[in-house]
Amino acid sequence: MTPSDPAPASARPGIGRLLVSCPDQPGIVAAVTAFLFERGANITHSDQYSSDPVGGGRFFLRMAFSLDGLADRLDALAAEFDARVGQRYAMEARFTDAARPKRISIFVSRYDHCLLDLLWRWQRGTLGVEVASVIANHDDLRPEVERFGVPFHHIPVTRETKPAAEAEQLRLLTGDAGTTGAGPGIDFVVLARYMQILSADLLDRLGRHGIPAINIHHSFLPAFAGAKPYDQAKRRGVKLIGATAHFVTADLDEGPIIEQDVVRVTHEATPADLTRWGADIERAVLSRAVRWQAEDRILLNGATTVVF
Amino acid sequence: MTPSDPAPASARPGIGRLLVSCPDQPGIVAAVTAFLFERGANITHSDQYSSDPVGGGRFFLRMAFSLDGLADRLDALAAEFDARVGQRYAMEARFTDAARPKRISIFVSRYDHCLLDLLWRWQRGTLGVEVASVIANHDDLRPEVERFGVPFHHIPVTRETKPAAEAEQLRLLTGDAGTTGAGPGIDFVVLARYMQILSADLLDRLGRHGIPAINIHHSFLPAFAGAKPYDQAKRRGVKLIGATAHFVTADLDEGPIIEQDVVRVTHEATPADLTRWGADIERAVLSRAVRWQAEDRILLNGATTVVF
Amino acid sequence: MTPSDPAPASARPGIGRLLVSCPDQPGIVAAVTAFLFERGANITHSDQYSSDPVGGGRFFLRMAFSLDGLADRLDALAAEFDARVGQRYAMEARFTDAARPKRISIFVSRYDHCLLDLLWRWQRGTLGVEVASVIANHDDLRPEVERFGVPFHHIPVTRETKPAAEAEQLRLLTGDAGTTGAGPGIDFVVLARYMQILSADLLDRLGRHGIPAINIHHSFLPAFAGAKPYDQAKRRGVKLIGATAHFVTADLDEGPIIEQDVVRVTHEATPADLTRWGADIERAVLSRAVRWQAEDRILLNGATTVVF
Amino acid sequence: MTPSDPAPASARPGIGRLLVSCPDQPGIVAAVTAFLFERGANITHSDQYSSDPVGGGRFFLRMAFSLDGLADRLDALAAEFDARVGQRYAMEARFTDAARPKRISIFVSRYDHCLLDLLWRWQRGTLGVEVASVIANHDDLRPEVERFGVPFHHIPVTRETKPAAEAEQLRLLTGDAGTTGAGPGIDFVVLARYMQILSADLLDRLGRHGIPAINIHHSFLPAFAGAKPYDQAKRRGVKLIGATAHFVTADLDEGPIIEQDVVRVTHEATPADLTRWGADIERAVLSRAVRWQAEDRILLNGATTVVF
Repeated sequence: MTPSDPAPASARPGIGRLLVSCPDQPGIVAAVTAFLFERGANITHSDQYSSDPVGGGRFFLRMAFSLDGLADRLDALAAEFDARVGQRYAMEARFTDAARPKRISIFVSRYDHCLLDLLWRWQRGTLGVEVASVIANHDDLRPEVERFGVPFHHIPVTRETKPAAEAEQLRLLTGDAGTTGAGPGIDFVVLARYMQILSADLLDRLGRHGIPAINIHHSFLPAFAGAKPYDQAKRRGVKLIGATAHFVTADLDEGPIIEQDVVRVTHEATPADLTRWGADIERAVLSRAVRWQAEDRILLNGATTVVF
Repeated sequence: MTPSDPAPASARPGIGRLLVSCPDQPGIVAAVTAFLFERGANITHSDQYSSDPVGGGRFFLRMAFSLDGLADRLDALAAEFDARVGQRYAMEARFTDAARPKRISIFVSRYDHCLLDLLWRWQRGTLGVEVASVIANHDDLRPEVERFGVPFHHIPVTRETKPAAEAEQLRLLTGDAGTTGAGPGIDFVVLARYMQILSADLLDRLGRHGIPAINIHHSFLPAFAGAKPYDQAKRRGVKLIGATAHFVTADLDEGPIIEQDVVRVTHEATPADLTRWGADIERAVLSRAVRWQAEDRILLNGATTVVF
Repeated sequence: MTPSDPAPASARPGIGRLLVSCPDQPGIVAAVTAFLFERGANITHSDQYSSDPVGGGRFFLRMAFSLDGLADRLDALAAEFDARVGQRYAMEARFTDAARPKRISIFVSRYDHCLLDLLWRWQRGTLGVEVASVIANHDDLRPEVERFGVPFHHIPVTRETKPAAEAEQLRLLTGDAGTTGAGPGIDFVVLARYMQILSADLLDRLGRHGIPAINIHHSFLPAFAGAKPYDQAKRRGVKLIGATAHFVTADLDEGPIIEQDVVRVTHEATPADLTRWGADIERAVLSRAVRWQAEDRILLNGATTVVF
Repeated sequence: MTPSDPAPASARPGIGRLLVSCPDQPGIVAAVTAFLFERGANITHSDQYSSDPVGGGRFFLRMAFSLDGLADRLDALAAEFDARVGQRYAMEARFTDAARPKRISIFVSRYDHCLLDLLWRWQRGTLGVEVASVIANHDDLRPEVERFGVPFHHIPVTRETKPAAEAEQLRLLTGDAGTTGAGPGIDFVVLARYMQILSADLLDRLGRHGIPAINIHHSFLPAFAGAKPYDQAKRRGVKLIGATAHFVTADLDEGPIIEQDVVRVTHEATPADLTRWGADIERAVLSRAVRWQAEDRILLNGATTVVF
């Protein structure tokens, strides 16, 4: 090898991330740190949280570290970590390569504000993900999506076709149902104002593939249920309107909250104004949640999240 | 009268405020403006709102104006306005003298954060009200209140004594039950974390005396009912906690909203942290609502408010 | 005219806006209101501000009103108002037709975040303007702009060519230099991260055509001058970064402020993070300023603005 | 020792905090973690920051840990840490006992809003400090302070008496100048709108005693210098007013920023309104900075802060 030769790919330094969740007990940080140190990793960032500092709680950890040859060593590292540390502390642990962007599929209906904001941030390189596909139950937004060079799949959903439609969605997300090779490799799904409920069955199947779904919905104090939320907000005279991004569970709009924000409104605001401002706050909140998930910052803690 | 004589009190200029609410129709602003102009008033501030600009809505107006001899002319002005303008447009109209601070009575239980914030702003002269009395169902806060030179009335409330207790509260607020002369002259009541429900009967009687009550309560997205709200907020993993100031109606915590605000929280916040931050946001929101009411900025529009 | 005939265009009701600025004195509101009432206009919205309620200040008024046949009567109404009311009170007064959207030209260089946000809001119909053209000193953003169907004019600017370039800009904005007919009819210019200074001469000429320019720039506490502002912000360790939209004057970045907002940052933010969040806050602030100008909400008060 | 005997004080568990700042290099976290683990400490919280993840930057760490007998072992632990870990990595390291509240002295002049907010939070037990004394260059606020049971020292300052006044201040803060025994034990000074500049000499002496000073001042975009800042803010027409809490250095108002916040204002705000809202935002920002310092959350990074 002459001096001008680049280092072989396997030796190039990379940034890895380790996410850990386990019952709290003494010695966890020391064990994880020692494991990484002994393998030549340098910890560049570390966040931890204990749900009960007095004891008996759950422990959460996110570490970023640099390591030579990370890309090639990641799987072996994870296996070794599990054997040496993870099993001992009953850890749920996950290693990721920061250089590999997460791949997402965006679900939409007819509202475009969240979709376009995500596509636009993705195009600028500031969303931290690859947009692998858009799946829609209406065909309206096809031109907008294809303009960005992103595959658009129109899968109509009616009460009768829902099982078949969800099977098709699952195939597009996971490559099940006969594909060979790598598959689409979707890391998570983003419901960008998708006006259909994902069935418990679909959520269960996605969960088994390790594919969470993030949803965005409007939020008010007090809360409203039912149709035309901004008309209700007007009738109730709220002075704040907001949005909540959360993981999707079988309990609609009740999944673990990732991020929330609000904007002030006055009596002068019409339902049209509220709708417009609501769209702005929805897209801001959703883009933050997507980016945090892309950066492996979110851990589940029962019905809540830990966001590092 | 020599040149150095001061103007008689009756001729001194004052700032008046006019609040109007009526069915919307053409010509209202012109009629009000002409009435004031012809009597020598100069309009210094005007805000208006129509609940439906297309027609058929309700119209709201707040005007501030300067007028020589305002204090002495106010009652006659109001009567003349009613005869010439108010009846014609089916107006609810109210004239006030900006120089006369509103008098309030603060209801408390054991929490002191909202009470002390109001007393402290009052002492600094920035709340825009006179604190006439504090009425409490516990005696704990007496020393704090008396330190500010404000009368403190301890009226315990149990299920059995509630009617008698409310009768005593009413007497302290309105001077009913046999007092002669001016009475306490309370303009509005502030429930500063008063942990008792005002009965529909008491609210009705206060309403007939023209005495509204403003309440403060915590607010979350989604909303919670029941006890220990900040523990619930922790379990639900909310990322925002807030407070709502509203007028009290027989529907607990459902009265017309005056003001709302929120503060961001993270997974690290303990219920104690949430409680502390909640106290900060509660006192900030309540003090704004009190000041706006003191400045005659709030009009009722059905179940909502117009805040000018 | 049979019953099914539509009303002639000249009789159709429209929404007009009147903006007034003049020395404060008694009777202004009454005079304006009477004038409109006598011509059959119904005032649907009114905001006013007096820079010194005690007297001697300047008075500002924005009224919206409905009037049959507004579009055809607007010029005559303005002339009559000037003769009957405006001259008497030394008013600067302006009547506009709310149904006619303002036409804007957007100036850009290479940054696309503010431009795309404006184009996208315009396409959704929520910006309240017509985007008539984009003028750029670089050709990079041509494809993005033309995708929206908006004319893109590339006018390079160097020190030597600046006078000629500005003459060409002026021609595109005003139709000067030999065009016949209506001209481009630009109502205001938006500098969406245009990295060139408009000369005092160009601003003066635009001023004579009644064409203001709105600019957006980053803002920090404390303020920074010079290049690479987000690197400076990082070195100074600010905890907030912000943006300011303002009218352009010959004093760079010192024109009357229209809107400001900030976002919180921490020590962890890199200059790249600050730049990304700065872009988000810049586009949010600029879009608000553009919409307010489109709705005739902004009046100049010396070196400051009144935003109704 | 019978079963009912309490554990000796020396064995009681306590919460310790470790703050570290040093040149970044591989292995720091592993070394610190191993040191604590081997001594029986359980890490309950850990935050770290590297000013340049690529290398060559500075490393910052804050750890909280539980340890039996902490109070008695703290000094020995610190000495051992320095010998085994600190010197090897050129660390600035500090161990503290979370159970020992920091002691502060508050400097004031005549404005009471920040002072009273701090005293009130201290009385409620939510500030996390002991208020040991108030030092004032005017006597006005004595009754307010003594009402809280806090010693009030009136030390007038003129140009001539400044050296003597600062010597007296230093004596009150450090117990220098002949006191014997423990001394006042002040951990940090809070300038709560103290309208005097601390001399470079006093700051230097305080620095040698390890006593930092935190200041609060108003902040605007753009920034203003000189007197009557809220009048200037009014003339400039700002739409936001803010406050900055920072460490005091010889460069007035240029020390490392700890916290900033803003509140929105409109053209209607008078200088009196701005002053009132400014007071609210000043006390909110200052109380956050004081609490964070009390919790050992703030580390210096050159001219900036790391706030964990």
